[in-house]
Amino acid sequence: MVKVGIVGGTGYTGVELLRLLAQHPQAEVVAITSRSEAGLPVADMYPNLRGHYDGLAFSVPDVKVLGACDVVFFATPHGVAHALAGELLAAGTKVIDLSADFRLQDPVEWAKWYNQPHGAPELLDEAVYGLPEVNREQIKGARLIAVPGCYPTATQLGFLPLLEAGVADPLRLIADCKSGVSGAGRGASVGSLYSETSESFKAYAVKGHRHLPEITQGLRRAAGGDVGLTFVPHLTPMIRGIHATLYSTVVDKSVDLQALFEKRYADEPFVDVMPAGSHPETRSVRGANVCRMAVHRPQDGDLVVVLSVIDNLVKGASGQAVQNMNIMFGLDERLGLSHAGMLP
Amino acid sequence: MVKVGIVGGTGYTGVELLRLLAQHPQAEVVAITSRSEAGLPVADMYPNLRGHYDGLAFSVPDVKVLGACDVVFFATPHGVAHALAGELLAAGTKVIDLSADFRLQDPVEWAKWYNQPHGAPELLDEAVYGLPEVNREQIKGARLIAVPGCYPTATQLGFLPLLEAGVADPLRLIADCKSGVSGAGRGASVGSLYSETSESFKAYAVKGHRHLPEITQGLRRAAGGDVGLTFVPHLTPMIRGIHATLYSTVVDKSVDLQALFEKRYADEPFVDVMPAGSHPETRSVRGANVCRMAVHRPQDGDLVVVLSVIDNLVKGASGQAVQNMNIMFGLDERLGLSHAGMLP
Amino acid sequence: MVKVGIVGGTGYTGVELLRLLAQHPQAEVVAITSRSEAGLPVADMYPNLRGHYDGLAFSVPDVKVLGACDVVFFATPHGVAHALAGELLAAGTKVIDLSADFRLQDPVEWAKWYNQPHGAPELLDEAVYGLPEVNREQIKGARLIAVPGCYPTATQLGFLPLLEAGVADPLRLIADCKSGVSGAGRGASVGSLYSETSESFKAYAVKGHRHLPEITQGLRRAAGGDVGLTFVPHLTPMIRGIHATLYSTVVDKSVDLQALFEKRYADEPFVDVMPAGSHPETRSVRGANVCRMAVHRPQDGDLVVVLSVIDNLVKGASGQAVQNMNIMFGLDERLGLSHAGMLP
Amino acid sequence: MVKVGIVGGTGYTGVELLRLLAQHPQAEVVAITSRSEAGLPVADMYPNLRGHYDGLAFSVPDVKVLGACDVVFFATPHGVAHALAGELLAAGTKVIDLSADFRLQDPVEWAKWYNQPHGAPELLDEAVYGLPEVNREQIKGARLIAVPGCYPTATQLGFLPLLEAGVADPLRLIADCKSGVSGAGRGASVGSLYSETSESFKAYAVKGHRHLPEITQGLRRAAGGDVGLTFVPHLTPMIRGIHATLYSTVVDKSVDLQALFEKRYADEPFVDVMPAGSHPETRSVRGANVCRMAVHRPQDGDLVVVLSVIDNLVKGASGQAVQNMNIMFGLDERLGLSHAGMLP
Repeated sequence: MVKVGIVGGTGYTGVELLRLLAQHPQAEVVAITSRSEAGLPVADMYPNLRGHYDGLAFSVPDVKVLGACDVVFFATPHGVAHALAGELLAAGTKVIDLSADFRLQDPVEWAKWYNQPHGAPELLDEAVYGLPEVNREQIKGARLIAVPGCYPTATQLGFLPLLEAGVADPLRLIADCKSGVSGAGRGASVGSLYSETSESFKAYAVKGHRHLPEITQGLRRAAGGDVGLTFVPHLTPMIRGIHATLYSTVVDKSVDLQALFEKRYADEPFVDVMPAGSHPETRSVRGANVCRMAVHRPQDGDLVVVLSVIDNLVKGASGQAVQNMNIMFGLDERLGLSHAGMLP
Repeated sequence: MVKVGIVGGTGYTGVELLRLLAQHPQAEVVAITSRSEAGLPVADMYPNLRGHYDGLAFSVPDVKVLGACDVVFFATPHGVAHALAGELLAAGTKVIDLSADFRLQDPVEWAKWYNQPHGAPELLDEAVYGLPEVNREQIKGARLIAVPGCYPTATQLGFLPLLEAGVADPLRLIADCKSGVSGAGRGASVGSLYSETSESFKAYAVKGHRHLPEITQGLRRAAGGDVGLTFVPHLTPMIRGIHATLYSTVVDKSVDLQALFEKRYADEPFVDVMPAGSHPETRSVRGANVCRMAVHRPQDGDLVVVLSVIDNLVKGASGQAVQNMNIMFGLDERLGLSHAGMLP
Repeated sequence: MVKVGIVGGTGYTGVELLRLLAQHPQAEVVAITSRSEAGLPVADMYPNLRGHYDGLAFSVPDVKVLGACDVVFFATPHGVAHALAGELLAAGTKVIDLSADFRLQDPVEWAKWYNQPHGAPELLDEAVYGLPEVNREQIKGARLIAVPGCYPTATQLGFLPLLEAGVADPLRLIADCKSGVSGAGRGASVGSLYSETSESFKAYAVKGHRHLPEITQGLRRAAGGDVGLTFVPHLTPMIRGIHATLYSTVVDKSVDLQALFEKRYADEPFVDVMPAGSHPETRSVRGANVCRMAVHRPQDGDLVVVLSVIDNLVKGASGQAVQNMNIMFGLDERLGLSHAGMLP
Repeated sequence: MVKVGIVGGTGYTGVELLRLLAQHPQAEVVAITSRSEAGLPVADMYPNLRGHYDGLAFSVPDVKVLGACDVVFFATPHGVAHALAGELLAAGTKVIDLSADFRLQDPVEWAKWYNQPHGAPELLDEAVYGLPEVNREQIKGARLIAVPGCYPTATQLGFLPLLEAGVADPLRLIADCKSGVSGAGRGASVGSLYSETSESFKAYAVKGHRHLPEITQGLRRAAGGDVGLTFVPHLTPMIRGIHATLYSTVVDKSVDLQALFEKRYADEPFVDVMPAGSHPETRSVRGANVCRMAVHRPQDGDLVVVLSVIDNLVKGASGQAVQNMNIMFGLDERLGLSHAGMLP
């Protein structure tokens, strides 16, 4: 039984970790921290958990308590894991960070996008980018995992087969992405109000979004060289879900793209390549740790369109975090993650 | 391993049965029927099930195939179970009917509300109304279960403690109920279109709804005599969820209602009485087989307000059906139903 | 041309005033204040207004500027109008207050519900409760209007015909009300986030809501004596709209309720009594200054069910405020308010 | 006063025409047809219109009645206007067709995309494509208008400035478009149910959508030569609104795109170019006859991103139809269309 701690459990990735771990037969949450809610039973904050965590309350973060866990998840804003990860690793505790703190390998790039100095550059060498479809072997031996962001998960998984096989021009990539509102977190902000986001649709951060360097870094690795990416995120009136519509130019129109994608993900338990001509819906992965995709080449032109969907809180955050935990601890990768999406 | 058949699996209660049974360790779906979709793999219709039922396709209903099952669920419009249940029972197969066919004990009353003669009055004597919180013992030995409707589940569970204890006037009950749109099913109808139901709210069927006699029948049993109920259903712009706001007059204001409710449901695995002063949200039971409730007496008057929420497709239909199956087959009542609701 | 000032124009009632007044042929907004947004053009905050108010920017509140207006609307939290109304009245400017500051005639009651002393009790005598269907004559000569709240408008208009005619028991009234999320305003709060309110339904403030004393005060006037009201508000996942489901016991079942309601509102331009058996939808009044209602007596019992819908931002706030302005300034009551609701 | 007839008024473009024309000071609807609803007062079908069209009921289509109108709008499925337009024109009645019947100039192309022969090829020569921003002069003298589709309006208006000025490569255009569900019409279909479309997002018709040839035809005219367009439509969970995200490669990075767009639309009453860096929201045009747009060049690269939003039922259908009517009859182009969008 893996003893689990969670730092910052009051946000949406926190409650989603609790929901998923409640079904996990080999993990037990023994500590969950929140300065603001210390003392409050988790089920008082999240009534869906009533009956599942009756002894568990939020507590003030305490490295002694967390250091006694086998693994600690950070479900925190950026900066927090920087401050605590080193101490936990020194105590022999593994760290799975859902924030952006260790996603970029270059601390200067990180500082530029997050407007503050990187707080733990000495840990970057051993931090593993937790995308199992790329780094499964490194994850097995890792002590520190940077769980990929939501947009980066959907986008990278959609582009990887093309770039790894060298069949697409890496310099002219477009990711037109649509996210549900839960991606903005549980913080009180006018922009995330129901009355501001329902019955409307908009792009945002066209000038530059923090997930851009993360995606670019991953695509560069896949392409083995420079990439040019235009990334346009949009806000769509739903709670959960990301739909990435990816555009790329094929350099050889004779390639069987469907076969390429199916082969790339044949052994992946959480990537589902649909039959040719399909249109994946985000609801088909709601609550499930799946990236579902389909590949199109409209009018037999040279432009490939990949449609890639995830639940931003599951395969885009907490589910992927648990998947990493399973790999790190030598468990069946699917433990606690095998349920179907909820439709309708 | 219980061998399960499903008749009429293309609707929302059908896909929800499949979703729940995919997680059930002691049940296996071996047949699912649909005349219109015969031959189609279930995962082609419901992509959330991809990877969960890869060998399973819809088939034309065949009593031989269904009669080889241990149990058959009817997820059909009314009338279908009337026609088939007898034959299946004769073949030794148990029947759990999610439709309204066997909910009313009086076939004349049934005929009046459903505008057609009752098709199997000879089975009414042995049909058990599958509300485990009332009829658990009868369910254990039953061959034929009538799964309660969604409104009736939320409403009866909310009123029962008051009526059984005789602390409320049974002649002046009001159930102001709000349902998500999935309650109207998956049939193509203008009234259930997104553009007709989103960003709007309305009452319907104030003159009389088919669930009225079903609720009244259950409340009469609880009260041990006549009841007077006004039932006003409303349509609310969400997919899943029922919120019943129940009004009743207490005959003795000194009764500790909170204690009464907690005691009534102390041993019930799927009824959750919240602390005094709570307001249950439908999302706290989304996807979960739970009825969550709270009891209020505003301004210390003699009017009791009970707030009772369920997911209409789970505790209000398919989850309750599986709960009945577990009881009938001597399994742990919680098998396949122990997951938490999905929030947010 | 009526010169209009608006205090506190950044909230939803503020932008709705601007939207409605942009179509008003006899009114011109000459000043709009906001401390936090001073200097910002209103169309930068609300792009729907681009092209309609190109010269208008938010300014710091200044009594000189406001006092030069013919009328000033307060679209502010409670307490603000208390502080400023007297000075404006002294300057000869009429005041239409959309907040709760002058709705309750008893300052002690006000202080109890709003947790602070009443700031302008000396103005209560001349403040007129701006429900034109009750107080049209007083509104004509008023200098200070308290615009009714959203729940109070829908609830009072639904109960009035019954109570004024003495055909219902005033001591056993129930108002089960459902509101869209915009009723909670534009403030940043977790409880109003999209991810907290979408795809869910809940009751709130069952113990006691600030609109309770306001509704009770109005019903008492209509009944000519004491009333007993249970008021249960609910939050429903839509932006705009209130649906009040009102329950009352008739003392004489022979009364023709349909005729009673039609006669009561025959001359009212903004109350629409639908034919018997109707179910008004909130979307039918979206954006329009209409209260639409239907009256039912289910199963020919003695319980009356009135269904009453409004747009909380129009007939429940800004539209009603403009209606009051039209009456006060001797204009056609329908000016600027004659457009149809937006459906779908 | 222009006497207006409407053929096929039961769908969403029909009710939207009625809503807009109710506010039009120079037009009067004298006939509205529907075979299925003949005899029904329009306000019985659309209660938002109660009080606005009290004498008007649906009638069986009758060329005599329609031919007595000054103008007839077709708000019908494709094929209907083919059958009737010629007769009406012969009677001296102008025709504004909101369907696709006269949008494509090539009847062979039309037949290919609509799977039936073109029913009135002899009228194609005089049919004018009713995009006022391109064809205002021809519209003035036209007898037969083909109102552009919703996607085509948002997409063409966004691309036009680039193509007309020759600053973008016409062979590599991408239109990633998102539509609300009302675009699918009011027909009863499973795919448009609330429970199928809410809380989900998907692409559809990636292989080829009927609006593709219409958009291509318009862009070809603007570019003065061949264009290559990839068009990917998506369904987003809202009622109204289209958001077109348009990608194009500039051939000269020194061009001031903001100035180019502002100049192109400087005199257009219904196109609003927002300041550089803006992100238009669909809600800002909800209910309004406006196309609002912003132009971006992310990371100062050579890819231009144009964001273009409309209300699909207004500037994308009924509003644009009324705009055409105003132009045809020499009225102020803004009559009946000058109201602001409804936000929130």
